[in-house]
Amino acid sequence: MSQVRAAIVGATGYGGAETIRLLLAHPHVAITSVVSSSNAGASIAEGFPHLNGILTDKLDAVDVDLLKEKADVVFLATPHGISSELSPKLLDAGLKVIDISGDFRLKNGEDYEQWYKHKPADPAYIDKAVYGLSEVFGDDVKGTDFVSNPGCYPTATALGLAPLAAHRWIDPKSIIVDAKSGVSGAGRGLSLTVHYSEMNENFLAYKVNKHQHTPEIEQTISRLAGEEAVITFTTHLVPMTRGILSTIYVNLKEARSEDEIFALFRSYYEGRRFVRILEKGKFPATKQVLGSNYCDIGLSLDSRTGRLTVISVIDNVVKGAAGQAIQNLNLMMGWDEGTGLAFSPVYP
Amino acid sequence: MSQVRAAIVGATGYGGAETIRLLLAHPHVAITSVVSSSNAGASIAEGFPHLNGILTDKLDAVDVDLLKEKADVVFLATPHGISSELSPKLLDAGLKVIDISGDFRLKNGEDYEQWYKHKPADPAYIDKAVYGLSEVFGDDVKGTDFVSNPGCYPTATALGLAPLAAHRWIDPKSIIVDAKSGVSGAGRGLSLTVHYSEMNENFLAYKVNKHQHTPEIEQTISRLAGEEAVITFTTHLVPMTRGILSTIYVNLKEARSEDEIFALFRSYYEGRRFVRILEKGKFPATKQVLGSNYCDIGLSLDSRTGRLTVISVIDNVVKGAAGQAIQNLNLMMGWDEGTGLAFSPVYP
Amino acid sequence: MSQVRAAIVGATGYGGAETIRLLLAHPHVAITSVVSSSNAGASIAEGFPHLNGILTDKLDAVDVDLLKEKADVVFLATPHGISSELSPKLLDAGLKVIDISGDFRLKNGEDYEQWYKHKPADPAYIDKAVYGLSEVFGDDVKGTDFVSNPGCYPTATALGLAPLAAHRWIDPKSIIVDAKSGVSGAGRGLSLTVHYSEMNENFLAYKVNKHQHTPEIEQTISRLAGEEAVITFTTHLVPMTRGILSTIYVNLKEARSEDEIFALFRSYYEGRRFVRILEKGKFPATKQVLGSNYCDIGLSLDSRTGRLTVISVIDNVVKGAAGQAIQNLNLMMGWDEGTGLAFSPVYP
Amino acid sequence: MSQVRAAIVGATGYGGAETIRLLLAHPHVAITSVVSSSNAGASIAEGFPHLNGILTDKLDAVDVDLLKEKADVVFLATPHGISSELSPKLLDAGLKVIDISGDFRLKNGEDYEQWYKHKPADPAYIDKAVYGLSEVFGDDVKGTDFVSNPGCYPTATALGLAPLAAHRWIDPKSIIVDAKSGVSGAGRGLSLTVHYSEMNENFLAYKVNKHQHTPEIEQTISRLAGEEAVITFTTHLVPMTRGILSTIYVNLKEARSEDEIFALFRSYYEGRRFVRILEKGKFPATKQVLGSNYCDIGLSLDSRTGRLTVISVIDNVVKGAAGQAIQNLNLMMGWDEGTGLAFSPVYP
Repeated sequence: MSQVRAAIVGATGYGGAETIRLLLAHPHVAITSVVSSSNAGASIAEGFPHLNGILTDKLDAVDVDLLKEKADVVFLATPHGISSELSPKLLDAGLKVIDISGDFRLKNGEDYEQWYKHKPADPAYIDKAVYGLSEVFGDDVKGTDFVSNPGCYPTATALGLAPLAAHRWIDPKSIIVDAKSGVSGAGRGLSLTVHYSEMNENFLAYKVNKHQHTPEIEQTISRLAGEEAVITFTTHLVPMTRGILSTIYVNLKEARSEDEIFALFRSYYEGRRFVRILEKGKFPATKQVLGSNYCDIGLSLDSRTGRLTVISVIDNVVKGAAGQAIQNLNLMMGWDEGTGLAFSPVYP
Repeated sequence: MSQVRAAIVGATGYGGAETIRLLLAHPHVAITSVVSSSNAGASIAEGFPHLNGILTDKLDAVDVDLLKEKADVVFLATPHGISSELSPKLLDAGLKVIDISGDFRLKNGEDYEQWYKHKPADPAYIDKAVYGLSEVFGDDVKGTDFVSNPGCYPTATALGLAPLAAHRWIDPKSIIVDAKSGVSGAGRGLSLTVHYSEMNENFLAYKVNKHQHTPEIEQTISRLAGEEAVITFTTHLVPMTRGILSTIYVNLKEARSEDEIFALFRSYYEGRRFVRILEKGKFPATKQVLGSNYCDIGLSLDSRTGRLTVISVIDNVVKGAAGQAIQNLNLMMGWDEGTGLAFSPVYP
Repeated sequence: MSQVRAAIVGATGYGGAETIRLLLAHPHVAITSVVSSSNAGASIAEGFPHLNGILTDKLDAVDVDLLKEKADVVFLATPHGISSELSPKLLDAGLKVIDISGDFRLKNGEDYEQWYKHKPADPAYIDKAVYGLSEVFGDDVKGTDFVSNPGCYPTATALGLAPLAAHRWIDPKSIIVDAKSGVSGAGRGLSLTVHYSEMNENFLAYKVNKHQHTPEIEQTISRLAGEEAVITFTTHLVPMTRGILSTIYVNLKEARSEDEIFALFRSYYEGRRFVRILEKGKFPATKQVLGSNYCDIGLSLDSRTGRLTVISVIDNVVKGAAGQAIQNLNLMMGWDEGTGLAFSPVYP
Repeated sequence: MSQVRAAIVGATGYGGAETIRLLLAHPHVAITSVVSSSNAGASIAEGFPHLNGILTDKLDAVDVDLLKEKADVVFLATPHGISSELSPKLLDAGLKVIDISGDFRLKNGEDYEQWYKHKPADPAYIDKAVYGLSEVFGDDVKGTDFVSNPGCYPTATALGLAPLAAHRWIDPKSIIVDAKSGVSGAGRGLSLTVHYSEMNENFLAYKVNKHQHTPEIEQTISRLAGEEAVITFTTHLVPMTRGILSTIYVNLKEARSEDEIFALFRSYYEGRRFVRILEKGKFPATKQVLGSNYCDIGLSLDSRTGRLTVISVIDNVVKGAAGQAIQNLNLMMGWDEGTGLAFSPVYP
């Protein structure tokens, strides 16, 4: 099989760097362009010394013609507001696009404007974008040219809720999501919040009731449940580099046993290698998915309160970004979804 | 003023060590005995080299007569099941007792047996024990001889809920507590969970719906609210040594503005230096209370869901254990509650 | 090509687990037995939940006949004193052996006894063992059946000294090695030293002038330099899981320019993909080799003192253990030395 | 005793913040001004929320007249190049000055220019400045008005070498210093090096053979030894916030037993509470001095090489900056050197 040629725009951020790491191990993909708006001309390895001797290409400037010439598929790992301009041009140029940014995730432009404080993309292209939550909407991804890759928190959270929502077992107004992320989720930009001496030995909440991933989660749950979901969503920073753990509280519409719930989850994710349902009484730690594309889920039904607690972990940079993007590439191309991703987590 | 003579039983654990650190700086207390059931005869500084040249006393064995001779007040920083036997003897010998363990916190012995999997203490002594949540039940502490010091999670959580519960603004069945603790909360004992290579770069949930602090929080909220509280409570370990952050979700009984809620909290804690209510839009980080007796609280009312989110942080070893114990000693003795505790957090 | 069948003895330690992770990605190897003296019968994934759904084989007991039946090559990731007994039996049974433990590294049995406080192995088998510092003694490894895999500190250190020693540019009595390791180097066993709350936010020296890797480094340098090396060697623990950085100080026998030294290193390691010599003025960080088989080396010649400083980093669990073991397997089998190991470090 | 009025210039950096923390607990000092060139007018607690309710003064601009009016003593915790201008004016205005920056440490202006890449201060004021390594040059500090406070690395290192240098037991050309620091030593400024995701799980060397503390250490050792010292000095960053560990290698001029060396150290530091010499065979960890003014020292004489290894730890922000500054204030004022500093380290 000839190699698919991939370009990564935003190659000097963490999402871009992880896309590079994973594509380097992909048997059917060749990286043919790494693109950065700010460092064009410099070697990618200057800013990322781990790539010395592995990938030392010069960074290209953002240039649609050049991308058209060099690549078949473009991964966008860019800040908000870039992809909304760039993706339509790339699509019009006949390229496949996998957008890791948030610009095409929300179908409702007003929601985007309200939560991202930014002008939404052209509605025609928003309509085209397939929301790539691979295990849930993977059938839509097959054969498309344009994937909007889910956010990190929405991936962990929606995978923890999808079986329940799709079978309408839960009250979609009762959902409370308490999510915790490693610091890489805040990106490579400089700020006092991500200063080592400030964040080390520290745990904090941020953007309480204001995180832009809120409507993304609500959109997915509403779509699956067939009724409007309104969630409470709190995000926290954990003094570690990688990993998200989402603790989700829901009320069931009617009484179910824990066994029924486990059976539902196992059946819903049957045949999907990257979602692992733990045994009853076990709960996942972020470390058990570190560096990998897995999402591990634990469940506990509390007989005292009747509430169900779902605990879901991912590596935010892999399953929450670059890994799922490549999983979506696999689906787009008709390859096995695990191609290039079927490696073990790094432990310890 | 002559010094009060203090003994610390369980001096080789983290709660004991922190009691020592804080008492060493207390102007009215002299440490006259450090007690350990396992290391008697060795110097306390052997296991704690930070105490070299500061406190190098030999550890005493557990001996009520010796304690009676050497001390006026005894701090118990022992595992469950020790204080239930020892405290009655110490009280009968005329000593003041501040029990940092969980043995006398639950007024209902059956709850203790169910959650701690251990025989409860003598009900007569359970009745005598004053539950020392200093800012809430401090008046009860004044003049008593026997304080049961609150647990770390219950301190952070109940301080975040007390104004609301006491004024009956919240539905005590709606409370969901998502709590996160530094690893020192698991004690100094060895296990794979607290192995550095396992816990570093890791975040995990544990004892989901099973943590023994659940009934302690419910007892406090029920007492304040005048109706039975049943909570959902999840605990997590954070890769840091010290600190607890409790994220609390509640439904209000009737609509309140965020301003009203802030006013309620400020008024409830007026004059209590160790509880700091943050400004609207700010949320606390554990680091801002590190090494100190402060509890910092942030509040957010979500107009979309009507839910209130309370975020409360403490240093689990100080306000969640040794610091509040000394605050209670101050109250017992009629001293200012901040005596020996009025120092700044360590930052960064 | 048919798969080589591999067994890992000591599969429940970190070295064993990493051997599993890397072999799972090796195109020519199948893991056919995971062996543990203590947990036989249990699934390997019980103790290592990251392996759920990936490798869930039951652990075999240590049994030479069974190993002979199931495997072609055996990796020993065992504590000291196991391999000295087991390896001869495995070799006699016709198996290939790669010993990751220290039992066959020292050619002088008295040195072993002095530094390891343990009876040395049978000298006949010590003679047979090929010391597998791949980039230095790789030619010896080709075609052998028995590799003694270097220790983690000796790998980082000897790779930083080999060009200088082999060309006799340095005084082998002048070498001072100041080495720092992540905590995984101490293994998965429980102790207060590796307790999270003790090791987090901590940095310490241990085994000063007493580390058992001292004679191993001396043996390699002496062999290369053709004269006896006696080194000063200090080891430290860093609050991180993976990584070794070795800072090495040496006096040159005669004056050399920094350019000459860089040229020597580049030439010595030409064609060896896993050793990367940094540009002048750059020094390596452990993170740039995390999870990979690379060894990155920086150099600085101080004109004020005439001393040369070499700084060498590896991932202790990969290049310092499992990765180099597999590199040696590749060499033994006549495969490219990078087979199954040519992936990017994990960053950040 | 009436309170001494203290101002802190550079109050929004870590050295300034720690000076505030420690002075708040000093019985004879009142903080009367906190000064920042950039944030004047804002409350100090805005940038440091741990100070809420403790110290909320508005930051003053840098103004010598205002300082003269409000303060008796001024602590300068400023970047290089500020104190060289400001201190002479403050001294001329009759204020006492304790300069925590490096501007007056080097008696030789050319050294300053070479290593700091900055114009040196007025030689007349350099002459006046007393180098405040408290346990070594404390007698000079008594009664002076102008202290130049030692750097963090020089404090840890010189305290580990002073007894040997002062008694001329060591060859001052043989000294190799391998020093490791927590990240707070790099200050509160933003850079990729101190970005959490870059520095966490990372260990690295920096400024190899180029650190500006090199001539400061050489100056102290030369002064004590009576002959010129030229050292090799390497600095590393450790993934922790606070702490320095300095591993020092020296050759003895003539053979000494380990017992003689221990006796020399104990005798040299007799009566100085903040220097603690560990027992033979024990080596210090940075955690055992965390948050405190202690310097703990371990010693090992290697009979194989004849080299002596000295290991010295401090908290870089306390003994390496603010703590020693206050110790020097105590000496200047004729108070006990431990006044306000005699508290236990924070453990764990």
